[in-house]
Amino acid sequence: MDMLWNGWGDPARAKPLPDSVIGLLRDMLGVTPRETPVPAAPDDIEVPPSPLSAKTLAAFAEALGGQKQSKDERDEAERDGTEHGWGAYVRTDATDRVRHTRGKSTPDLLRLRAGDVTDLPAAVLLPGSHDEVLAVLRICAEHQVSAVPFGGGTSVVGGLAPESVRPFVALDLRRLNTPPRIDEISRTAVLPAGLRAPRAEALLNERGYTLGHFPQSFEWATIGGFAAARSSGQASAGYGRFDEMVLGLTVATPEGGWQAGRAPRSAAGPDLRQLVLGSEGAFGVITSVTVRIRPLPVRRVYEGWRFASFEAGAAALRGLAQDGPRPTVLRLSDETETFIGLAHPDRIGSTAPEAAGCMAVVGYEGTAEDTAERRSAARKALTAAGGTYAGEEPGEHWARGRYDAPYLRDALLEAGAFAETLETAAFWSDIPALYEGVRRALTDTLTEAGTTPLVMCHISHVYENGASLYFTVVSAQGEDPVAHWEPAKHAANEAILEAGGTISHHHGVGTDHRDWYAREAGELGIRALTSVKAALDPDGILNPGILLPTPPRADDPSSRTPSATSSADRP
Amino acid sequence: MDMLWNGWGDPARAKPLPDSVIGLLRDMLGVTPRETPVPAAPDDIEVPPSPLSAKTLAAFAEALGGQKQSKDERDEAERDGTEHGWGAYVRTDATDRVRHTRGKSTPDLLRLRAGDVTDLPAAVLLPGSHDEVLAVLRICAEHQVSAVPFGGGTSVVGGLAPESVRPFVALDLRRLNTPPRIDEISRTAVLPAGLRAPRAEALLNERGYTLGHFPQSFEWATIGGFAAARSSGQASAGYGRFDEMVLGLTVATPEGGWQAGRAPRSAAGPDLRQLVLGSEGAFGVITSVTVRIRPLPVRRVYEGWRFASFEAGAAALRGLAQDGPRPTVLRLSDETETFIGLAHPDRIGSTAPEAAGCMAVVGYEGTAEDTAERRSAARKALTAAGGTYAGEEPGEHWARGRYDAPYLRDALLEAGAFAETLETAAFWSDIPALYEGVRRALTDTLTEAGTTPLVMCHISHVYENGASLYFTVVSAQGEDPVAHWEPAKHAANEAILEAGGTISHHHGVGTDHRDWYAREAGELGIRALTSVKAALDPDGILNPGILLPTPPRADDPSSRTPSATSSADRP
Repeated sequence: MDMLWNGWGDPARAKPLPDSVIGLLRDMLGVTPRETPVPAAPDDIEVPPSPLSAKTLAAFAEALGGQKQSKDERDEAERDGTEHGWGAYVRTDATDRVRHTRGKSTPDLLRLRAGDVTDLPAAVLLPGSHDEVLAVLRICAEHQVSAVPFGGGTSVVGGLAPESVRPFVALDLRRLNTPPRIDEISRTAVLPAGLRAPRAEALLNERGYTLGHFPQSFEWATIGGFAAARSSGQASAGYGRFDEMVLGLTVATPEGGWQAGRAPRSAAGPDLRQLVLGSEGAFGVITSVTVRIRPLPVRRVYEGWRFASFEAGAAALRGLAQDGPRPTVLRLSDETETFIGLAHPDRIGSTAPEAAGCMAVVGYEGTAEDTAERRSAARKALTAAGGTYAGEEPGEHWARGRYDAPYLRDALLEAGAFAETLETAAFWSDIPALYEGVRRALTDTLTEAGTTPLVMCHISHVYENGASLYFTVVSAQGEDPVAHWEPAKHAANEAILEAGGTISHHHGVGTDHRDWYAREAGELGIRALTSVKAALDPDGILNPGILLPTPPRADDPSSRTPSATSSADRP
Repeated sequence: MDMLWNGWGDPARAKPLPDSVIGLLRDMLGVTPRETPVPAAPDDIEVPPSPLSAKTLAAFAEALGGQKQSKDERDEAERDGTEHGWGAYVRTDATDRVRHTRGKSTPDLLRLRAGDVTDLPAAVLLPGSHDEVLAVLRICAEHQVSAVPFGGGTSVVGGLAPESVRPFVALDLRRLNTPPRIDEISRTAVLPAGLRAPRAEALLNERGYTLGHFPQSFEWATIGGFAAARSSGQASAGYGRFDEMVLGLTVATPEGGWQAGRAPRSAAGPDLRQLVLGSEGAFGVITSVTVRIRPLPVRRVYEGWRFASFEAGAAALRGLAQDGPRPTVLRLSDETETFIGLAHPDRIGSTAPEAAGCMAVVGYEGTAEDTAERRSAARKALTAAGGTYAGEEPGEHWARGRYDAPYLRDALLEAGAFAETLETAAFWSDIPALYEGVRRALTDTLTEAGTTPLVMCHISHVYENGASLYFTVVSAQGEDPVAHWEPAKHAANEAILEAGGTISHHHGVGTDHRDWYAREAGELGIRALTSVKAALDPDGILNPGILLPTPPRADDPSSRTPSATSSADRP
């Protein structure tokens, strides 16, 4: 099944908002239905033909299993649109190219709904192995074509929209999907990059194991995407972030194959795994990942805890993160999010007294004994921290709807509202100022623009030394909704850096956060990464402008960075 | 107090071997006392004058607080050897230079005892701040002098002996020793790089915190050295490795200052902290480190557990690492180490029946309740895994002698024996072949050379997915003990790579492991790191030949690597 092309997920699961919510959006935020027609299918969008030459396409076709048809057959197939002219794995038809255009941020969806396909790939390639990825990259370098790896297509930071003066191909990795190779003694599994998370999890479950990685994109995202973008899942309190699960990576670069990671831990030089993790395809294409696996939990329980304020709740979470016991899931909504009950979309608009204060969801997964012990100890700690037990219902409700928020966003966009999320992380002592600063930036900017927003926040990832903050913004759309949002996003990014936060805790950098990331990493940090890119991708074909600035053009000496490396400048 | 110049630690704590042990060494291993006289003091070694020009030394003196004396006074001071001619922080006298020659591997000590000062620094500089380190590096680049950062001087992998055609200065960081800046909310502390571990720990203890990092080098090593070499402490099961404690680093590079790390965790790009950790001074000089701190444990208990075999004991440790509960300290000696009782130096030679099988030390640190709970649960698990509780005595004995092994090595060298250690780590399923492979390589090579060794091993660091193996070799010295050891070390390194191990789990790479590290990191891994070095240290002044190969000379185009960067080639 393919993802909804201009929204999220399984089209059958789309659900319009109840009239009561539409009324509330109108009365509270001034949201009015939009009249602009939206293209019904990718084919309704006018798409220019692929700018790639027949020679280039033939080279790709040759590398990916060859070109199965005669020229006449190809011409006929292209006219019909029923078959791909360059074999099954080199696709230039409109549907495939539109389906690989951009990711799933709200601006991405709004642009596609407006028929804007400026970020259209020139072709979609489906390599079937590490060696085929290597071959494709060599052809890209030779033919001066950029390459953008495509996993689940769930980027919300512009990670699929390169800044390229050359045409680019989308490398859809779905065929890298062999079953996990499991080592039960070491509790590791080798997973191919294109394996979707539900399938990986199901295959591990069959053997009695779990990866324990359940981000909101779980139903669509791939193993390679988790690694490339340093994903963090909803059960990170118990299972850790994805980058903490990774023990090894295989990478296909334009300069050849590379294997990072040998033993679980090592003192032999810098940890090269951590150089690949988060590199977002700028250095190479991750083709497989060795991960830590854990026994499948026999017991899962999620419960609600109520706190008088976000501050009190955050202090309670900090207590568990620092002194234990450590739950598997640990989340806290602020007053607004609790009130709106985003975790309960079917109750939006409820003003029952139970919605006062802040709601936390605390979950335990493991053996019966282990979950019972941690739950009992955490109950003592949370009570001592001022929490009130709210039963299992709020926790179970959260668990049932844990992947539904993007569907709700589709419904909000459909109803004429604007809805977007952004997130950050900081040390505990910076959290209060970060929370206030980002809320103020978003509220002030959008209010000034005439669309007073609803800004909600939750903590969903905790560490001994800090936590993440995840913001959801809902407002009226404004005339040009993408341009309308831009200053608010800009102000939020500034507020994040100002308060000591990182520009992203789990969404990544892409093109959207690149300029702020450059400030966070520092000039020498960017110089170091740029030099790695120049070493592994000397022609600069991989994800240009994603994560790192586009290398200066060789014909423009004035734009040269002070970087000590120069091969990225090759024409 | 300064470390013993040609051995380990506090000279007052040196302890000769009992006659019974000397007899045992003679009877078992054929160790005979050596007659070669050893220089009594650094001054007894003939040291060439510093090759640095007065101009260069004056520049350093100017950067480090100025040159306090007139030229006549300097000349007189140099003649007397009583004062430093270039101010207190630029030292060219023999004593200081010999004290900064090489590290503390057995070959290092043997060479120094033989009066070999080929790796002598041209001067010892003592910068007092991050800015002074920056200034010194700029002068080094300008004057074409290499620079080797020097923390505790405890490297055992040739990390202080650069391969430099230029003269080099030792940057002794002991003056970077301001008290920790503690954030009690976030539980973090900023520690200067030159702070010695015992002082850092004492200052944290005063405030009720601990770093929890206690490697065998604890009494001498510095915070910066821990970070640069990815140290791992004896309590790593509970507190993690040093690289897991680090939240931020300040680095002085020849290209300027750099701050890596912002929030505790982030998805913004690769984790640049993990690029600095383990870089062993090749990219820059770490000047301060932000670390996670924990409450000082109120209870510490260490106990012994006996297993029928190393295999059975390793399986028990694996059970705790994978399924918990996790002790704070977890170690297991193999049959030979248990028999010899290296952990009980005063009992060497005992053949009491209690020495049969394998001894594990299991320790718990934390609150009274937490240690009691973990201890009780671990007792069940260890018993179920076939372990027999051996009381607290073996644990407490280990704890009392935990920093004594290097003193024992001095005594062994003094007695004419050869004693050295090496270590690795691997996934659990590779551990049996790794253990056998390294033991066989060491035994076969040394036996062939006529000095059948005693090879002992322990596991001292466990992870969910694997463990470290730490080998100790004792044999007769052979005629030229350094040359005699080389083939055995070489064979052990080959056996490590052959069995899937990492070339070092906590000692690092230095010059000794560089060639094997290059194979482990892979050609593209080394190319990536070399390009980072070229970006941050374009003149190649930092630690040449340590960690990474010496950059090819500009005047030798045939030696150019296929690296995409070229600025390391600048003359």
